[in-house]
Amino acid sequence: MPKKTVGIIGGMGPEATVDFMAKIIKNTPAQIDQQHLHMLVDNNPQVPDRIEAILKAGQTPGPILAQMAVQLEKWGADILAMPCNTAHYFFTEIEKAVGIPVLNIIDETIKVLKRENVNCVGLLASTGTLKTRLYHKRLEEANINIVIPSEAYQEKVTQSIYALKSGDYFRARMFNQELIDHLVGKNAEAVILGCTELPIVFKDRDEYRIAFYDPTEILAEAVVREAF
Amino acid sequence: MPKKTVGIIGGMGPEATVDFMAKIIKNTPAQIDQQHLHMLVDNNPQVPDRIEAILKAGQTPGPILAQMAVQLEKWGADILAMPCNTAHYFFTEIEKAVGIPVLNIIDETIKVLKRENVNCVGLLASTGTLKTRLYHKRLEEANINIVIPSEAYQEKVTQSIYALKSGDYFRARMFNQELIDHLVGKNAEAVILGCTELPIVFKDRDEYRIAFYDPTEILAEAVVREAF
Repeated sequence: MPKKTVGIIGGMGPEATVDFMAKIIKNTPAQIDQQHLHMLVDNNPQVPDRIEAILKAGQTPGPILAQMAVQLEKWGADILAMPCNTAHYFFTEIEKAVGIPVLNIIDETIKVLKRENVNCVGLLASTGTLKTRLYHKRLEEANINIVIPSEAYQEKVTQSIYALKSGDYFRARMFNQELIDHLVGKNAEAVILGCTELPIVFKDRDEYRIAFYDPTEILAEAVVREAF
Repeated sequence: MPKKTVGIIGGMGPEATVDFMAKIIKNTPAQIDQQHLHMLVDNNPQVPDRIEAILKAGQTPGPILAQMAVQLEKWGADILAMPCNTAHYFFTEIEKAVGIPVLNIIDETIKVLKRENVNCVGLLASTGTLKTRLYHKRLEEANINIVIPSEAYQEKVTQSIYALKSGDYFRARMFNQELIDHLVGKNAEAVILGCTELPIVFKDRDEYRIAFYDPTEILAEAVVREAF
């Protein structure tokens, strides 16, 4: 049975890419190694900071991401995926650079939310993702209400994301409960973990009385669906 | 500070490669994404079964592994590592095919055992690794005594390895305690988890009253040392 080779535009951050690969493996129906998907992974943490690029007009990662995509295609990838929500601001630039399909983490997540009839969703994401309204636009099109943290709470999201990137799991998880309480207080009936560091920050999700949507997991499921 | 790009000859199994990448990240002194190592990963689970190739004269994975190494060099890797112990039977073939250093999981593990003055070590590994005496030869050179499971217990090791590859964690971990007791009964003072599935099988190592050597972790440390 011929399966597609999956190219991963990775490294943003490196641990999020590992989490994504693990989720692809977990979602693959396989009894032996040989039934698993072939993945070509460019785990390149040197991609310029996406959030800085958007908020502070830092070096744009667009051309580097497009170049990584081109290389992955050349190396033999049949489909591409990029486990970083904020980097999807550069999605069109990447998609235009290659001749193979690029799965979109935001589109895939919205599909699932629509299917499950979510009315009002809380969004935890990088300030770059919020500012560029990546999720906002698509959620509004889908008639799903969206709530985001206040500025003070968004600062805690930022701290959690960067703490995870620095390997400080304790500090990364410090605000988890208050962030959820804050969004529930704003009538969120579910929460999107809309930065690929956040599913790692919110590792033990049974502790909270709310449904989570994990875009990393959703993108992994889409990869498996498209590859087979 | 220029760092080397790490090429990973992976997919044997895919979860072992993810475990290896996670251990490289964990061992890297980094506060932000950009300080992490650039990894190019060919996670190719379609490499023919290494154990079958050795025990039953199945299709040899040597040429495919060498080709993966050549490609990774071409893609920009400065050093290579292969998170699969059994595949090290084909190490010379791989090393000869490229012009960049290839780290050797067995050599790195022996270095650590020598440094820590281990006298008698138990070896849990695939039957392919045992039959080809990959660890035996190097342990004997280092004057370290080696004990391996009886044939009946080795069958349990094989079952655990293949259960992990099939995603059945419960069955993979079923024999953990008896395997350790068996090796301790043969005077092992420490245990090498000499198949890259086994550090995942023996995930919670504090439960056992013995020291473990995890070649995946040791290889990851070597990668970080060589890359910086």
